[in-house]
Amino acid sequence: MLSEFSLIDRFFARRARATPRAPLGIGDDCALLLPRAGEMLAISTDMLVEGRHFLPDVDPHALGHKALAVNLSDLAAMGAKPQAFTLALALPEARESWLSAFSEGMFELAERFDCELVGGDTTSGPLNICITVFGEVPHQHALRRDAAQPGDDIWISGTLGDARAGLGVSRGEWSVENDDAAAFRRALERPEPRVALGLALRGHARAALDISDGLAGDLLHILERSRVNASVDIDAVPRSAALRRLTADAQRRCTLAGGDDYELCFTAPRSARTAIEAAGKTVDVPVTRIGTISALRTGEPAITWHDAAGTPLTLTLQGFDHFHAD
Amino acid sequence: MLSEFSLIDRFFARRARATPRAPLGIGDDCALLLPRAGEMLAISTDMLVEGRHFLPDVDPHALGHKALAVNLSDLAAMGAKPQAFTLALALPEARESWLSAFSEGMFELAERFDCELVGGDTTSGPLNICITVFGEVPHQHALRRDAAQPGDDIWISGTLGDARAGLGVSRGEWSVENDDAAAFRRALERPEPRVALGLALRGHARAALDISDGLAGDLLHILERSRVNASVDIDAVPRSAALRRLTADAQRRCTLAGGDDYELCFTAPRSARTAIEAAGKTVDVPVTRIGTISALRTGEPAITWHDAAGTPLTLTLQGFDHFHAD
Repeated sequence: MLSEFSLIDRFFARRARATPRAPLGIGDDCALLLPRAGEMLAISTDMLVEGRHFLPDVDPHALGHKALAVNLSDLAAMGAKPQAFTLALALPEARESWLSAFSEGMFELAERFDCELVGGDTTSGPLNICITVFGEVPHQHALRRDAAQPGDDIWISGTLGDARAGLGVSRGEWSVENDDAAAFRRALERPEPRVALGLALRGHARAALDISDGLAGDLLHILERSRVNASVDIDAVPRSAALRRLTADAQRRCTLAGGDDYELCFTAPRSARTAIEAAGKTVDVPVTRIGTISALRTGEPAITWHDAAGTPLTLTLQGFDHFHAD
Repeated sequence: MLSEFSLIDRFFARRARATPRAPLGIGDDCALLLPRAGEMLAISTDMLVEGRHFLPDVDPHALGHKALAVNLSDLAAMGAKPQAFTLALALPEARESWLSAFSEGMFELAERFDCELVGGDTTSGPLNICITVFGEVPHQHALRRDAAQPGDDIWISGTLGDARAGLGVSRGEWSVENDDAAAFRRALERPEPRVALGLALRGHARAALDISDGLAGDLLHILERSRVNASVDIDAVPRSAALRRLTADAQRRCTLAGGDDYELCFTAPRSARTAIEAAGKTVDVPVTRIGTISALRTGEPAITWHDAAGTPLTLTLQGFDHFHAD
């Protein structure tokens, strides 16, 4: 067992240093951050709990990656550039091997995105990881959920459903070839935050969010905040080659109500199609149009689903809702 | 049981609104915060765990107060003005009465300090409260731990030890009159962050921190970061009338190694004595000189303890250290 202070020093504080962006580093009552003039500070916080967001036997390196990745994904969905993060960690015991792998997984991702650890807290307790992340975005470029307009295209980055398929494999819901299982597991454990795409969409996309609870539930957040409807072609929803080897029913469950995708769902005017395609190519992330935003005439915002032939479909699938009895 | 989104809406999101300082409010991927030009953003995060930081039968109103108070205390220790906070909350179940009281306790304090809830996360899981708080401070006025200088006075705000005495009463370590027990319990459950004092000390104090783990351990953080020694008169350490009714031994344990005080310990040059006294009077918080900073000649920074008569004392008491087997 390590004492708290040597634990913090050994795995975390030594990785944090005073920089022009964060001139104090770790070890004081507060971190100090120097925002650049003209930029808004984008802030997001996510709490990950064992049994809820990851399994007890999760690889700690993958957990360190994912804990930061889901926060960076929120910055990406805002079109914000990562700057810094804080880490609060409750651990049942301070095992060095676990901490070493966890911190490596986290810092590898942090360094790739030039995002500095500036503060934190550790305590004993049931395993809980709470990261708060900070990024910068010019006010007029923030990709907000309330900015979708009738006539906008609806776009998706990457492919959806692989993470949910990975969960299905681990639960024995379906069995797949080893290569596909590995791809699904990688999607579940090591999501790639679409930060570069978020930045490339500034000035082109209108509304955006990241898909963490499933397309069906998350797209509805854009609709509710923007007071619009949506029409989506479920056959256009991008899927990996591995996912296409599951049954059509499993594919739909995974892509529409899967969750843990951390791909961007965004809207943009038709006039931006060329720019959006170019942005995707520049950052090497596929972008796919799956539907259209329309005006809300009466009632509550809703998604109308149809297949490639235009046949309407009724879905009862729901995204995760953390206090449902699910 | 409430669904996550209605729970957030009912108790938290409705209290957050778009303002000039935080123009987005809750409900997007990120909060947006607009820092003022010329100010540093001070950031602190604290995680509170049941059994470690509070007892299972804690009054949820008091818990809501304390969870935010300990974070505001970190801003106070930096001389920063509170601006905003995020709340991440893991709950075993979403009980309305608990959430109502918890959120009331938290928002009463938030409103007193004009500190806005700008974002958060809720999940099911073992009870865990992680708040990240944001404040503003001009760079040159930040009260850092590494700024103490030889010859500085060492000051304490308010009185120390009452919170630890409250824990002692609840554990049956000692018994006291009802009025004293109530005072101790109030100190333990409803610490008052010294925000106004921190602001009043700008330009007068040099180093500062808030005492969360006991004076003996926390003062050492200033010494280590500033590379100086300290000499402290333990009889000068300010104590409440209630605490003075405990034995001399219990008083020392509570004041020096108690923890949960959330008073400020700060250093300032002798020339600032009048200004410090005036600052304390202005904000109606007693300030007391307890010792002196001296140069570090060799070895590691240390505190030399003595009593009012000047007799040296050896203390083996330690502050809390969260991963010790305590």
